[in-house]
Amino acid sequence: MFDIAPNFGALLVFIEHRYTSADMLGYLTSTRALADFAILITSLKQNLSPVDAPVVVFGGSYGGMLASWFRLKYPHVAIGALASSAPILQFYDITPWSSFNDVVSQDFKSESLNCFSVIKAVWDVLDERGSNETGLLELSKTFRTCKTVHSVSRLGLWLRAAFTTTAMVDYPTPANFMMNLPAYPVKEMCKIIDTFPPGADVIDKAFAAASLYYNYTGDQKCFEVEGGDDPHALHGWGWQACTEMFMPMTVSNESMFPPSSFMPEKRSKGCFMFYGVRPRMHWITTQYGGHKIDKVLKRFGSNIIFSNGMRDPWSGGGVLKKISSSIIALVTEKGAHHLDLRSATKDDPDWVVEQRRQEVEIIHGWIDQYNKDIARM
Amino acid sequence: MFDIAPNFGALLVFIEHRYTSADMLGYLTSTRALADFAILITSLKQNLSPVDAPVVVFGGSYGGMLASWFRLKYPHVAIGALASSAPILQFYDITPWSSFNDVVSQDFKSESLNCFSVIKAVWDVLDERGSNETGLLELSKTFRTCKTVHSVSRLGLWLRAAFTTTAMVDYPTPANFMMNLPAYPVKEMCKIIDTFPPGADVIDKAFAAASLYYNYTGDQKCFEVEGGDDPHALHGWGWQACTEMFMPMTVSNESMFPPSSFMPEKRSKGCFMFYGVRPRMHWITTQYGGHKIDKVLKRFGSNIIFSNGMRDPWSGGGVLKKISSSIIALVTEKGAHHLDLRSATKDDPDWVVEQRRQEVEIIHGWIDQYNKDIARM
Repeated sequence: MFDIAPNFGALLVFIEHRYTSADMLGYLTSTRALADFAILITSLKQNLSPVDAPVVVFGGSYGGMLASWFRLKYPHVAIGALASSAPILQFYDITPWSSFNDVVSQDFKSESLNCFSVIKAVWDVLDERGSNETGLLELSKTFRTCKTVHSVSRLGLWLRAAFTTTAMVDYPTPANFMMNLPAYPVKEMCKIIDTFPPGADVIDKAFAAASLYYNYTGDQKCFEVEGGDDPHALHGWGWQACTEMFMPMTVSNESMFPPSSFMPEKRSKGCFMFYGVRPRMHWITTQYGGHKIDKVLKRFGSNIIFSNGMRDPWSGGGVLKKISSSIIALVTEKGAHHLDLRSATKDDPDWVVEQRRQEVEIIHGWIDQYNKDIARM
Repeated sequence: MFDIAPNFGALLVFIEHRYTSADMLGYLTSTRALADFAILITSLKQNLSPVDAPVVVFGGSYGGMLASWFRLKYPHVAIGALASSAPILQFYDITPWSSFNDVVSQDFKSESLNCFSVIKAVWDVLDERGSNETGLLELSKTFRTCKTVHSVSRLGLWLRAAFTTTAMVDYPTPANFMMNLPAYPVKEMCKIIDTFPPGADVIDKAFAAASLYYNYTGDQKCFEVEGGDDPHALHGWGWQACTEMFMPMTVSNESMFPPSSFMPEKRSKGCFMFYGVRPRMHWITTQYGGHKIDKVLKRFGSNIIFSNGMRDPWSGGGVLKKISSSIIALVTEKGAHHLDLRSATKDDPDWVVEQRRQEVEIIHGWIDQYNKDIARM
């Protein structure tokens, strides 16, 4: 957006999502966020005088969902939306629950079958070694944890987070979105695993791979595995996942993670214990639609770009097919989580450059059409 | 709806608008009402099994606004809306503020210039006579009030409510919507005024006319002018008018009512004193649109009938022109407030019959199209 705003003579506005602090969570809803955007945008235009200036909304991930929903609910406020990696179909009964973890696994498998197999093998070994105090002490040393870990499951989550998030940010250039990472970090992780000598310990391999994610810059003396600050902690997301953002996820037998099912009742119970609320499983699809999205959007929506990179675990919940002449799906086979919204770099592969060029062209088309409409009035 | 439901094999559902009780007013918003409708409709269809059954929403007046807004915000839940006498443009800076009272006055003027002039003359006389205790006692007798009135302004409001509401319900057949009334009640009121002998008192004329509204059945022994139950009291509407339903109204010099202006600041102050809230003047148009409605709806909406009767004081705030091939305006010159939603009677004039026939035809078209779409999937 910073790159292209000058070409459009555009004002960039980043609007905060309110009510993410603990004492305000009760007000934290996507609906309220959209209303905030509508009020702020309308008011800004009034106060800054360009009342008729066209507005295009941009967002990635949850922000991408908000962008597309904003265009659907407030077509009189925004003339179009670029919804990047927006999993608006990642809800209760639309996208298969294993989709997310299947993509993560496929990302690693696509780099190296050995890499995939090593990661798949690590969980049982980890559980076995971590089943007693001595084992946990050993593992704490291996994982260079800042404090001795008390539960092997935390080590598992720590490893898994590294693989999952690296799949999300598997960008073709060095980046610093979640963590500082090299280009194609999944490939780099697998290289680390694959270059271990024969007979090396599977735990050592997994830790070395995870270190690429947690310590690429090499300045971490130790790792906060238990109770540390999670760098991906999104304030309020836990609440949202327990209210409206109910996205069931499972791990299938084909995954490199330990298979797991999803029990809505169990999640509901947990949410009630933690927040005193229960998830509304069908709320998002009731509020914004989602079922038969192609048919519904074709008839009632326009001017939305849904962009997705197929290496992004969230892509399974995205809109991957063109819906109408003005609701476009831009899909890149090698793209990751909202790559298109990142600043251009000299190392960008052609397919990213082309994707961004298409987006700019489409947005220019919306604005031209809007200006023609305005001129006619 | 009762008349036509059998032709469609339709289930009729009347959905309550929540939060109208005094202790719940803080939750009373149109947005929340629409969300309620979405949840209930979706859930009903799931529980009753016809998940794919098409839903058409109907509403008159505020309900008509809700119906049209529901279609705009929840196109995935309702395939179309009949919005009868829905003043969705009666907001801050769209419709002229005098529109409502201009139509009331025009209704009376169209029946008889004398009738209009008598009503126009009554207010000064009333104020003059009611300026002291003796006068108020006399007026209380004339108006057959249950208790002696303490303020002449209440008598004025009582009279004015009779004329205003009668204009709203100026139906071509006997009806019992607000009150039991004969066909063409404005004409009947004017007949009463016009048949007084020359030189009769203007107050007597006005009272006799108002009695048609308050006492057509003749069973009222006295009238509760001060502090009585207002039969039109809409629970919660006061709150809504002080929050989002901010519809400024003035009386122009051409009206039959005493000219008056509208001061947003004064209203805001009153709302704050009474409810502890201040109106959000631009909220409705921000949330639902309204400016350039023709352009916006043409591109982003479909399947809405806006029906209006031009004798309805609310018609000025309605959508009176066809917006697109599927957003239709049905306007009847002689119609009043959501006449089309009333049950058919044997005395209905041809133009009402024709209006309803058109509505049914259009709705059939929506359903046929929907069924075709479903069949293709």
